[in-house]
Amino acid sequence: MSRRIRGFLVKATMRAAVKTKPAFGSIEIKRVNVPRIASDEVLVELRIASICGTDMHIYEWDAWSQKRIKTPLVQGHEWAGEVAEVGSACTWAKKGDYVSGEGHIACGHCYQCRTGNPHVCNNVTILGIDRPGSFAEYMAVPEKNLIRNESDLPPEYATIQDPLGNAVYTVFNGDCVAKDVAIFGLGPIGLMAVAVCRHIGAKRVFAVGHKNEYRIRLAKKLGADRVIKSSEDDPVEVILDETGGLGVDEVLEMSGSEQALGQALRSLKPAGNMQILGIYAKPVTFDLSTFVTKGAAMYGIHGRRMYEDWYRMQGLFRSGINLMPVITHKFPLDDVTEAMELMRSGDCGKVALLPS
Amino acid sequence: MSRRIRGFLVKATMRAAVKTKPAFGSIEIKRVNVPRIASDEVLVELRIASICGTDMHIYEWDAWSQKRIKTPLVQGHEWAGEVAEVGSACTWAKKGDYVSGEGHIACGHCYQCRTGNPHVCNNVTILGIDRPGSFAEYMAVPEKNLIRNESDLPPEYATIQDPLGNAVYTVFNGDCVAKDVAIFGLGPIGLMAVAVCRHIGAKRVFAVGHKNEYRIRLAKKLGADRVIKSSEDDPVEVILDETGGLGVDEVLEMSGSEQALGQALRSLKPAGNMQILGIYAKPVTFDLSTFVTKGAAMYGIHGRRMYEDWYRMQGLFRSGINLMPVITHKFPLDDVTEAMELMRSGDCGKVALLPS
Amino acid sequence: MSRRIRGFLVKATMRAAVKTKPAFGSIEIKRVNVPRIASDEVLVELRIASICGTDMHIYEWDAWSQKRIKTPLVQGHEWAGEVAEVGSACTWAKKGDYVSGEGHIACGHCYQCRTGNPHVCNNVTILGIDRPGSFAEYMAVPEKNLIRNESDLPPEYATIQDPLGNAVYTVFNGDCVAKDVAIFGLGPIGLMAVAVCRHIGAKRVFAVGHKNEYRIRLAKKLGADRVIKSSEDDPVEVILDETGGLGVDEVLEMSGSEQALGQALRSLKPAGNMQILGIYAKPVTFDLSTFVTKGAAMYGIHGRRMYEDWYRMQGLFRSGINLMPVITHKFPLDDVTEAMELMRSGDCGKVALLPS
Amino acid sequence: MSRRIRGFLVKATMRAAVKTKPAFGSIEIKRVNVPRIASDEVLVELRIASICGTDMHIYEWDAWSQKRIKTPLVQGHEWAGEVAEVGSACTWAKKGDYVSGEGHIACGHCYQCRTGNPHVCNNVTILGIDRPGSFAEYMAVPEKNLIRNESDLPPEYATIQDPLGNAVYTVFNGDCVAKDVAIFGLGPIGLMAVAVCRHIGAKRVFAVGHKNEYRIRLAKKLGADRVIKSSEDDPVEVILDETGGLGVDEVLEMSGSEQALGQALRSLKPAGNMQILGIYAKPVTFDLSTFVTKGAAMYGIHGRRMYEDWYRMQGLFRSGINLMPVITHKFPLDDVTEAMELMRSGDCGKVALLPS
Repeated sequence: MSRRIRGFLVKATMRAAVKTKPAFGSIEIKRVNVPRIASDEVLVELRIASICGTDMHIYEWDAWSQKRIKTPLVQGHEWAGEVAEVGSACTWAKKGDYVSGEGHIACGHCYQCRTGNPHVCNNVTILGIDRPGSFAEYMAVPEKNLIRNESDLPPEYATIQDPLGNAVYTVFNGDCVAKDVAIFGLGPIGLMAVAVCRHIGAKRVFAVGHKNEYRIRLAKKLGADRVIKSSEDDPVEVILDETGGLGVDEVLEMSGSEQALGQALRSLKPAGNMQILGIYAKPVTFDLSTFVTKGAAMYGIHGRRMYEDWYRMQGLFRSGINLMPVITHKFPLDDVTEAMELMRSGDCGKVALLPS
Repeated sequence: MSRRIRGFLVKATMRAAVKTKPAFGSIEIKRVNVPRIASDEVLVELRIASICGTDMHIYEWDAWSQKRIKTPLVQGHEWAGEVAEVGSACTWAKKGDYVSGEGHIACGHCYQCRTGNPHVCNNVTILGIDRPGSFAEYMAVPEKNLIRNESDLPPEYATIQDPLGNAVYTVFNGDCVAKDVAIFGLGPIGLMAVAVCRHIGAKRVFAVGHKNEYRIRLAKKLGADRVIKSSEDDPVEVILDETGGLGVDEVLEMSGSEQALGQALRSLKPAGNMQILGIYAKPVTFDLSTFVTKGAAMYGIHGRRMYEDWYRMQGLFRSGINLMPVITHKFPLDDVTEAMELMRSGDCGKVALLPS
Repeated sequence: MSRRIRGFLVKATMRAAVKTKPAFGSIEIKRVNVPRIASDEVLVELRIASICGTDMHIYEWDAWSQKRIKTPLVQGHEWAGEVAEVGSACTWAKKGDYVSGEGHIACGHCYQCRTGNPHVCNNVTILGIDRPGSFAEYMAVPEKNLIRNESDLPPEYATIQDPLGNAVYTVFNGDCVAKDVAIFGLGPIGLMAVAVCRHIGAKRVFAVGHKNEYRIRLAKKLGADRVIKSSEDDPVEVILDETGGLGVDEVLEMSGSEQALGQALRSLKPAGNMQILGIYAKPVTFDLSTFVTKGAAMYGIHGRRMYEDWYRMQGLFRSGINLMPVITHKFPLDDVTEAMELMRSGDCGKVALLPS
Repeated sequence: MSRRIRGFLVKATMRAAVKTKPAFGSIEIKRVNVPRIASDEVLVELRIASICGTDMHIYEWDAWSQKRIKTPLVQGHEWAGEVAEVGSACTWAKKGDYVSGEGHIACGHCYQCRTGNPHVCNNVTILGIDRPGSFAEYMAVPEKNLIRNESDLPPEYATIQDPLGNAVYTVFNGDCVAKDVAIFGLGPIGLMAVAVCRHIGAKRVFAVGHKNEYRIRLAKKLGADRVIKSSEDDPVEVILDETGGLGVDEVLEMSGSEQALGQALRSLKPAGNMQILGIYAKPVTFDLSTFVTKGAAMYGIHGRRMYEDWYRMQGLFRSGINLMPVITHKFPLDDVTEAMELMRSGDCGKVALLPS
């Protein structure tokens, strides 16, 4: 069965990876209806979708997921595809456009949205969390959330712009060019931050992982000047030693670990900056007096700047950043459970799904 | 006895309030030698000196003092006076100049000093802590630390520029003009922050004290729009209620209380800023995930910007800021112990000593 | 005749001041159709509208107007009123809301709009210039352009938010609090800048007019510390003299005069800022080498930050800024030609029209 | 003849390139006294010195030189060498240190010096202009102006830090990483700006020269994405064409040409920035209204940030920037006239002198 859209044929149903019930795992390939779009939305035919840490939380059905997620749900908010259908109130998108897009749908009228901060919109809804996402053949997206990709952008880069945008926001919120930077946490976003810092000429990039050998190797491959395994070496000692006791100019805390947070502060130069992307399982205990007497600054990094960071990424792509080592695996959509289990193992970088 | 300096007579000895031994109190008026100046220093004949919270720590001989302070010591780093003698390598100061000055003596050659951040100098020495201070008739000060006061500046304002500079750094590091501001902690610096915010047109100033009625009254007098007694009302509730649930744009945490810090975060608008001047007795437990998802920023405020904040204060004085209610008491230097005890009681604003 | 909107009666026709033909003056009160709103627009019943310098250009039918304006046109983009009708796709506006709004309708999808700079949108349309404006009983406005006014905001303040927003953008793009500021040009926006600078605690405000006695008196009334009549005194000389040869920290060039621009640069402290709101009849000749060796910065101020400056104005109103002296005259809409001629004379501040 | 310094032997006289009289050329190798150092200065034994555009002005004895320079003068303010003698009041420099240094000696006590802007000091004196410079075997330098070079830094890089610092200030005062940048003027500093922009991941670097083929080739070699010869192609047309009509985010005007300035403005995206390092022979005529309606910003770049830009350069060196193609020629000090004539021809990049 299919439906005709402005002369083009869009199927009426599609395959999708559906979180079917409120429990661990429970993600199944099902045939569901193709989403109907509102007048200010487009329908995207997905070419690739990648798996976010958030998708792992939902897969594992952790405390956060239990509160936030309603099953059944088509997950996924990292993606690239082609515009298959354009709503009547859209102003610029065209059928056939090669697009990706921001997963946070900002309301546009709250105080934050009206003052340049839609990334912390009071009324945000998120693709693949609050409405059907990208682990499917088709997805509806508001036109305002789209970015048109350069035609020569590899789909592997196009799909990771959402998490790369996190890394870009983190790195560019600091002053990393020609400065010493320490990155705590080598998950996919931490690894991308390593690549970005190296590409833009950071003085030295200290990459701090805990144990995961796979990702420590990746960090080296992506250009970290010094990779520290915190289960074996004290990062503070190494960093202070290599910076002549001064510490680094910027720390990027991407691990969500209280211990790493403390090490990050102690590794920091007076008047330095801490960018915090990590999310912590519970309140952290933190030496705030040292933070104050150092005259340090700390920034909470949530989402990506809309859409400054998306344009910044286009600049990084155009200037030749190498992120290929980050995308380590691709699976057919049908193997979504296998892909999820690989992510759980940690023996991977970014993992992508191919709907067809 | 006296000594002759370039034709002027400076006494050889002077009265000073001396912390005589490593114990509570123990501050005595003694006759000691007038300090000798180095070639890049001036000798200041003090007209007024005020008591800082740090002086209270030394008076009470707390853990910090026991580690940092060597007795005997002439305390004091808030002051105004006249230049009585000018070192041979000085370039601009003149005998008779009406001056105050920065208490932090920065080294000038560390990384921070050479990159615009001498307020967090790696090798700082502090007047009245590491070398003789202002609770005396005379004090030696490096010329580079001096600020020449306008001749019509009241001595009561001239002497409080060091702590007012803390308040000014805190307020101006944020974006408080025509914005909603919450100030946690109503010690003398918190009170001055209230006055500064009111003077520069903050939208609303929420001043949060704990119990001290004296200072709550002062906060009202200095122009707070709403004073909250946190022992009776929940500041978060009041602030969210009065801001339509949005929260304030800026919080200034000046209390050093972990509880206030948490309230400050919960009172803050997404994408808002936290300025932290407080010093905490021990590591704080803090809801960092909320900080991150709010996209908030936090700044450690230490000392004053040298010398941006000093010139900013001149602008505030010139534009007519009213700080008189902050300076509640003046004592002859001889009554230093009485002054210290008043400070301990908390039933005062700023307390000043008059050497003669 | 009338039409019924969701149960409320809106008249089908209305009185409006219409620029009837491409020539000087030619503004007539006519009965025209009440605008129809699009689904994302509201219909505003106007209570007050004020006259902008742009309206004078159209009245005088200068070179710019001849190129840009198509007659017949209902002019006007400064206004306040009540929402009389709400489009079906609107999300928050309610009938009866007391509103004003931004006159620049940004497209929302160009590079500037998507990167925080809709005030320089590539595809802007402007109320009262490209579509019917506020010199009428009713006007259609996109909901996204509305600001809900506080219920106690005087209509005289509500209507001038568009030009006050220019002044606020100019002042806040600089660093004027507790700093020396020179304002060149004492038209209504220059006068408002004087009031804003005084309200937020500028150190000294130097206001430079040319000849107009009326506005020089107004500048004094609004709190300028020193008003300079450039036809009699050299502003550079006066400013350097009063600042000890240093110059001011900020200059706000709001006159559109090449001579004033040169004086502004010469009055500026090294490392100071120039905010340029003026529009110049032809290219200016400028001593750029002096600008460079001073290490100065110059900012082009166009429109208002959307909507940061609107919220900033709410903060200024709430903190008690006094702008009443700026609004010197009010006329019934029927006397629009008389109002225009008063504006031409220059013997006024801001002039407002009352539609009913 | 020689003199003994703390046990080391420093010669009493030295060879130096001396501008002997107020006329074109007139630079001669002479034997002069080794400078005596003040207590806060060091004596540097020079290893290399490079020729600045300013040195060409003096060589050609232009209008500026006639006003500013007093002969005889040892020119030169770009250099690297070893500390041969340390003044008694110095705090950190050691004999044998491999150093370079800032040529602008800031007074330390004017308003700019005390507020983070010593690069526009009111009382600056400059090495090789106001006092003996680096075209010699020895030079006296205040310790505060020194930077200790990494031991593995090639002397060719060490000597060009003064002009590289201009380029670094220009580039980093903008926001060039992953953005489109147009550089107007391909003198040595413009060429270095090309290299810096390329190294830090600018999206695209448009380099605009006029005619000089040698430097156009160099710009390509240093990584410009597109080199435009303005004598043949219209840079505005090329840039708008390649940016889809948008223009670039940043223009760096380093040519001192009024025509280039106008092209720079027309090549600029709305809300973009103009960094102006050029010095103009006379006042420029500039379309300021377009600048204003674009909401653009313009920054005068003078000298280098002291010493932020020096540390930034260390970061660029450490991260592997390739500047070798910029330094095209080295001459023995004795051939200074030949070196000057080569510089005049323009068929070179940076030209260095070797004192021994």
